[in-house]
Amino acid sequence: MPQADQVQSAHHVVIVGGGFAGLYAAKSLGHPSVKVTVVDKRNFHLFQPLLYQVATGSVSPADISSPLRGILGRNSNTKVLLDEVLDLDPDSKNIILKGGVLSYDSLIMATGVSHHYFGNDQWQDIAPGLKTIEDALEMRRRIFSAFEAAEGERDPEQRKALLTFVVVGGGPTGVELAGAIAELANQTLKGDFRNIDTTEAEVILIEGLDRVLPPFAPELSSDAQDALARLGVRIRTGAMVTRIDPESVTIRCGDETEVIPSHTTLWAAGVKASRLGAVLAERTGAELDRSGRVIVQSDLSLPGHSDIFVVGDLAHFAHQGERPLPGVAPVAMQAGDYVAKLILKRLQGRTSEPFKYVDRGSMAVIGQNEAVVDLGFMKFSGPFAWFLWVFAHIYYLIEFDNKLVVMTQWAWNYFTRNRGARLITGLEAVRRTDGAVPQASAKV
Amino acid sequence: MPQADQVQSAHHVVIVGGGFAGLYAAKSLGHPSVKVTVVDKRNFHLFQPLLYQVATGSVSPADISSPLRGILGRNSNTKVLLDEVLDLDPDSKNIILKGGVLSYDSLIMATGVSHHYFGNDQWQDIAPGLKTIEDALEMRRRIFSAFEAAEGERDPEQRKALLTFVVVGGGPTGVELAGAIAELANQTLKGDFRNIDTTEAEVILIEGLDRVLPPFAPELSSDAQDALARLGVRIRTGAMVTRIDPESVTIRCGDETEVIPSHTTLWAAGVKASRLGAVLAERTGAELDRSGRVIVQSDLSLPGHSDIFVVGDLAHFAHQGERPLPGVAPVAMQAGDYVAKLILKRLQGRTSEPFKYVDRGSMAVIGQNEAVVDLGFMKFSGPFAWFLWVFAHIYYLIEFDNKLVVMTQWAWNYFTRNRGARLITGLEAVRRTDGAVPQASAKV
Repeated sequence: MPQADQVQSAHHVVIVGGGFAGLYAAKSLGHPSVKVTVVDKRNFHLFQPLLYQVATGSVSPADISSPLRGILGRNSNTKVLLDEVLDLDPDSKNIILKGGVLSYDSLIMATGVSHHYFGNDQWQDIAPGLKTIEDALEMRRRIFSAFEAAEGERDPEQRKALLTFVVVGGGPTGVELAGAIAELANQTLKGDFRNIDTTEAEVILIEGLDRVLPPFAPELSSDAQDALARLGVRIRTGAMVTRIDPESVTIRCGDETEVIPSHTTLWAAGVKASRLGAVLAERTGAELDRSGRVIVQSDLSLPGHSDIFVVGDLAHFAHQGERPLPGVAPVAMQAGDYVAKLILKRLQGRTSEPFKYVDRGSMAVIGQNEAVVDLGFMKFSGPFAWFLWVFAHIYYLIEFDNKLVVMTQWAWNYFTRNRGARLITGLEAVRRTDGAVPQASAKV
Repeated sequence: MPQADQVQSAHHVVIVGGGFAGLYAAKSLGHPSVKVTVVDKRNFHLFQPLLYQVATGSVSPADISSPLRGILGRNSNTKVLLDEVLDLDPDSKNIILKGGVLSYDSLIMATGVSHHYFGNDQWQDIAPGLKTIEDALEMRRRIFSAFEAAEGERDPEQRKALLTFVVVGGGPTGVELAGAIAELANQTLKGDFRNIDTTEAEVILIEGLDRVLPPFAPELSSDAQDALARLGVRIRTGAMVTRIDPESVTIRCGDETEVIPSHTTLWAAGVKASRLGAVLAERTGAELDRSGRVIVQSDLSLPGHSDIFVVGDLAHFAHQGERPLPGVAPVAMQAGDYVAKLILKRLQGRTSEPFKYVDRGSMAVIGQNEAVVDLGFMKFSGPFAWFLWVFAHIYYLIEFDNKLVVMTQWAWNYFTRNRGARLITGLEAVRRTDGAVPQASAKV
């Protein structure tokens, strides 16, 4: 816990959450006029855009994670506190942690989002989502265990169901996951098994809207669908999932219902705000949107609480009646940086313009040499888009922590088409003979 | 499961265990005159000598593991079966797996060893050992969580206990662990914390005999002790552990008893044979030694069962009244290779000489630029020994799988003194406020 004397000596900014938003705020607050405490449940920052590569065995968790203390070690005004926020009291300006109470002068909440099963929380154990390292390791375990189980399965129908992978949600995460699993089956694992042909594995991508990558321009969605089809991914658009059980997924397209036998269903469909959104609403009177995100003012603070800011995926920012900003890393980074500068200006008696997101474009990767890039003034797909995607991601990885290793790993994988991190860890690797999927409750 | 028709077409060798012994046997059996099935509970081979680097956050699990299917993919006569052996029937020549029954013509058992707490199994949860990836991640979690908890602890005595790390056992694993934790505290984490000075952390190495590295020559033990002392490790030789609880370790040196307050105790003291040793003894009448290892004949087969071989750490091989061979990788590799060649020769009607281990020397690493090497005709320590150690380990890593990344990681760590893999994963990272150590039962 920070010592009281240190806190009193300067304006104390408490940042809850060490994701992109919290980290960019902390970095921009490396100024002697403030004391900063970053509170996180985990001791590392996670580069979430590459989590699907952990799930499909390309890179290791540590390759896309950086210890928060390492990143912020040079900011001598900044402390990192490994703790969990339970509640807050805006009147006394305190947050209540598992390990004690922490007072703040300014509070930046950036605890992000988790999965949303749209009222079907019972699907959570059957169709895990992808937000944490543990989620990714659980997906990795299921994907590789399914191939192993198929190798030992004599019944052709069961074998087919074991080799069918359903990805629910056609946004960037779903597209990346589907593409990576298809590459795994068609290239990496080819020849590793004796009783099954991994190239017969089927990857099915389910999307409720009429095209994948709905936030992108229609021509890029179309390019992405073509590229996925070349990888062998079956795309079902306009399809709603109505039921998921351990051995099948039921979808409805229009009036027709289809049951897809599959032992491995992965969830990439929806997000909801982390628990602290509701806590903030209750304690400050702030409003929440349908996903539980906190509706913020034009300077990212809460109504009536100019000392409390919400940034990153937890925030619903809809300036001048526009659609709310998407939950992507660039928005989080810019918002974190904005709030940090606002606080520093405020201490100098200066005011700030409302937050304005500068959209430098968006991109999604589909597979080796395949990506789509929308720079606004220019839209393209193919190998050059892929190189741009790799370059942008390496750039950000290096910014935090010299992740030389990730670059080497990628280069190596690119030339060898190998995936070295395909370990099955955690729960028992050996499937029960009844073929039941182990419950995800005992997290890896 | 292998199909019956395939098995009948050639002599079927079943290898249980994909460690060094099993893998070297499988590699040497890549010959069309035999069919080979490798059975393992895990889908990867683990390079155990570097497990301590996972435990101390230098490398990721996947960096020292290779998928068995990848390693053996080119041996078209070889199948990998992810399954667990429950029992065997030497009369019908069958092994009983979780997933079914598998018949063999020759059986090679190589399931290794696990921790031995010398009748104090209750210490297992408090002082975890280091044999599996999950063990190493649990150690990593405890080591880094202890520093985090110390940062938040106001009571000076509790803080000191949190910053005291006790390693039980002065063999190579214990020495490597103690050295790596000392380097972590003195170098890597220096400056990362605000309330604690990590260089004040104390690492205590407990050894029951009168010197560390007892299998090595006394002058090398002495060099190792000097090097450990330079890193700040306190060595207690001639000390027996009499009690371990979550907040302290009690040792007895001669007539004196000492209680060391410590929240992190790591076990590197003893091993016992895996469960299948006892199964083998019961089914074949083979004898076990005190550690449960199976006493093998001069050709590594079992008395009265010339078709069953035991190799690696599970075997007790004491040719001509000598001390049994140590449980190290080179013995396992040579034994696996020997049995493979014996089986191939036997199919040609030829006989084999008794197994003879060629000792090319042993080495142990203490820290950066510090190792001890005993080549028999030559003993030395210091930077050159360290380079030789690195070279030998990289050589073996590359032999299995082009672990280019590990080399890069090592080179990077060497120049930056950084440890990128210091993630706290699995169980809750946030310590309970009562300071209790979470139980290890919910494995990461």
